[in-house]
Amino acid sequence: MTEIDPDRLYASLADLGQIGAYRDERSGLMGVNRLALTAADGAGRRHVVERMKALGLSVTVDRIGNVYARREGTRPDLAPVMMGSHIDSVETAGRFDGCLGVLGGLEVIATLNDHRIETLRPVVVAFFTDEEGSRFGTDMLGSAVATGRLPLDAAYALRDKHGKALRDELAAIGFLGDAPERLAPPHAYLECHIEQGPVLASHGTQLGVVSGVQAISWHELSIVGKSAHAGTTPMSLRADPAVAAARIALFLRELAVSGRYGEGMRTTMGSIVPRPGLVNVVPAEVTCTVDLRNPDDAQMRRAEADVLAFYAEVERLEQVTVSWRQTARTETVTFAAAVQARIEAAARARGLSTERIVSGAGHDAQELARITQAAMIFVPGEHDGISHNPRELSTREQCKNGVSVLFDVLVTLANQEPAP
Amino acid sequence: MTEIDPDRLYASLADLGQIGAYRDERSGLMGVNRLALTAADGAGRRHVVERMKALGLSVTVDRIGNVYARREGTRPDLAPVMMGSHIDSVETAGRFDGCLGVLGGLEVIATLNDHRIETLRPVVVAFFTDEEGSRFGTDMLGSAVATGRLPLDAAYALRDKHGKALRDELAAIGFLGDAPERLAPPHAYLECHIEQGPVLASHGTQLGVVSGVQAISWHELSIVGKSAHAGTTPMSLRADPAVAAARIALFLRELAVSGRYGEGMRTTMGSIVPRPGLVNVVPAEVTCTVDLRNPDDAQMRRAEADVLAFYAEVERLEQVTVSWRQTARTETVTFAAAVQARIEAAARARGLSTERIVSGAGHDAQELARITQAAMIFVPGEHDGISHNPRELSTREQCKNGVSVLFDVLVTLANQEPAP
Repeated sequence: MTEIDPDRLYASLADLGQIGAYRDERSGLMGVNRLALTAADGAGRRHVVERMKALGLSVTVDRIGNVYARREGTRPDLAPVMMGSHIDSVETAGRFDGCLGVLGGLEVIATLNDHRIETLRPVVVAFFTDEEGSRFGTDMLGSAVATGRLPLDAAYALRDKHGKALRDELAAIGFLGDAPERLAPPHAYLECHIEQGPVLASHGTQLGVVSGVQAISWHELSIVGKSAHAGTTPMSLRADPAVAAARIALFLRELAVSGRYGEGMRTTMGSIVPRPGLVNVVPAEVTCTVDLRNPDDAQMRRAEADVLAFYAEVERLEQVTVSWRQTARTETVTFAAAVQARIEAAARARGLSTERIVSGAGHDAQELARITQAAMIFVPGEHDGISHNPRELSTREQCKNGVSVLFDVLVTLANQEPAP
Repeated sequence: MTEIDPDRLYASLADLGQIGAYRDERSGLMGVNRLALTAADGAGRRHVVERMKALGLSVTVDRIGNVYARREGTRPDLAPVMMGSHIDSVETAGRFDGCLGVLGGLEVIATLNDHRIETLRPVVVAFFTDEEGSRFGTDMLGSAVATGRLPLDAAYALRDKHGKALRDELAAIGFLGDAPERLAPPHAYLECHIEQGPVLASHGTQLGVVSGVQAISWHELSIVGKSAHAGTTPMSLRADPAVAAARIALFLRELAVSGRYGEGMRTTMGSIVPRPGLVNVVPAEVTCTVDLRNPDDAQMRRAEADVLAFYAEVERLEQVTVSWRQTARTETVTFAAAVQARIEAAARARGLSTERIVSGAGHDAQELARITQAAMIFVPGEHDGISHNPRELSTREQCKNGVSVLFDVLVTLANQEPAP
């Protein structure tokens, strides 16, 4: 059984984590801020590209800034097997989200090199532009363009909150490439990623075999009431949008825990902004967000309908108006059953426990699933799997387990003959 | 019956409203921003002081920046009757809050001058420093220092959010006076103010006779839960401080409408700030505010106890910790019954309808009530009495009614012989 070098892998995560590092005031921990297409993202990209070249890979940058590094196979005419993820981050990130998939892929390449292992098919390690969507508002951007969901011109035209256009920012950091953005379907796509949740750790499971990505529905609400002085306005004359938002927050909680939409229903009100937001003023308006997740498309549609009906009920109860717009919506994605089975087999051979898990977050793999057999390996995280936070942490051992299985499955798939 | 000049009064409100004026982006209306001790407040103060001098008044500035303008009586040795209020504003104000009491007082003086009316007692028009408390965090600041509730040094040491000390800011705008800050008790204090609420307008009442100021209790809450990914964290593993805040918001509503704390109970959660406040993140922490009002001190104490008990209940229900601190607390204030009766009599003589009303907001008059017989006249407002907002509006007629009664009561009180 060929072994990767877990120290080299973990050191590469630490090295990349130095780029865009900052000290978190509250915790004193070092965090990472490599928001897409900023100078820090550019520096991170150059660092990873250097590593790719040092491993002897040929590097291509496409017109949306996706980077592909290729190790030739004995049959260069065959579709390659691709490993990948992203290296951009949210503003308050750790060093594992995305990076484990990219640096894990490069560790697989390094191990192939160390052992002079040839593969039938070419092997490609990719990192995709702006997976997080934190800066330009569209997540899985690069992989969505590469797989045809998002037109290149629409992506180019996106602007950040300062009005800077995505295309200009790509050029500014030197990653506006000239390779065609549409990706020829690889033979398979593998992504090793941190779970970003507490399930694996709470079960004591060593690796997650991701069966798919759950459906996501986001609403942004504007609840308009009547601004009033908190001291002078009788309760009966109020139209308080903060009370309306509170009703919706509790309805969402009840909806999820009721079990009526399956065990996988999750609901969150993560943002609430009352205006003017003063202790002694009934707000004129509250904007807030609703995040619904469900691994079943039909259950999700039922939940969405019931949430919309409740908005109307709240309008009546609180004398407010509730306007909403859909800011994101994706159906469930199912990963390739055959590759899931191979991941399980590889883990078993190494004595690692696994369980099937639905991804709660979006990933580049769900975009790649549109054009090839895609699959994901989840690595558990410490601290209840906290992510998008400087406390994000998967141990050296956890990372080693995930990338070892990534290696095994990669080698198997990269030696698959084409179907006759 | 001597008549004030309502056009001169209304024009003086418009003139002062030009100072610190800004255009409100949302409504297109002109608002006023004369936050205490800013350059705009300084300009407003100089404008009013010029007007005072033009009316022949002698102007004193005390060590906390309170301004007193005196018209001599035939018996200068007797305690004066004082009219007053404030001319500082919140950041998003209209032109009536406070200004009506000060400019109304000057209109009374102008009318006395026009008709060459002498009074037995001196008459003083005052404006007090930083009634709003929006900048330095302590409301009724100038009147609290003048009447002994707040030591001068404590007031001097207050800092705004940029770290600027109040004493330095007083000096910077030229209003660090040298008159002693402790006020010799006047014979009486009268304040004409907008209601800042919908009650008088909804009853069709022309003037409010303020019986007192209700008790106020403010809490600032910090609710700490566990930050988590909205897509990956099962509901059963969450500790969501936004859900906890929603429970408290609805509890407050129920508490006020239950009637169990009297009809005057009012509750508001005006500020809610989740961190990090992102659509797909269960917040780590929510800070929010609680505003409780009640015209009865015993009912207020019962309500406070029940609110605190509910915080503990929410800790248990949502697995969060709720920390709170008291950011303001005042007991009820009762205004002088004899002066209330005089206001009613004066209004009746002019054919104006009145009702007794408890002030929901804090006012300088409640500080003056500590050292003299104090009373307030409330003028209704349009648009449900909206205040602290560019839409704040009392009509020329409404202002005229209030200041006419102010004139009548002032003349009566200013001719009262000292008790034998």
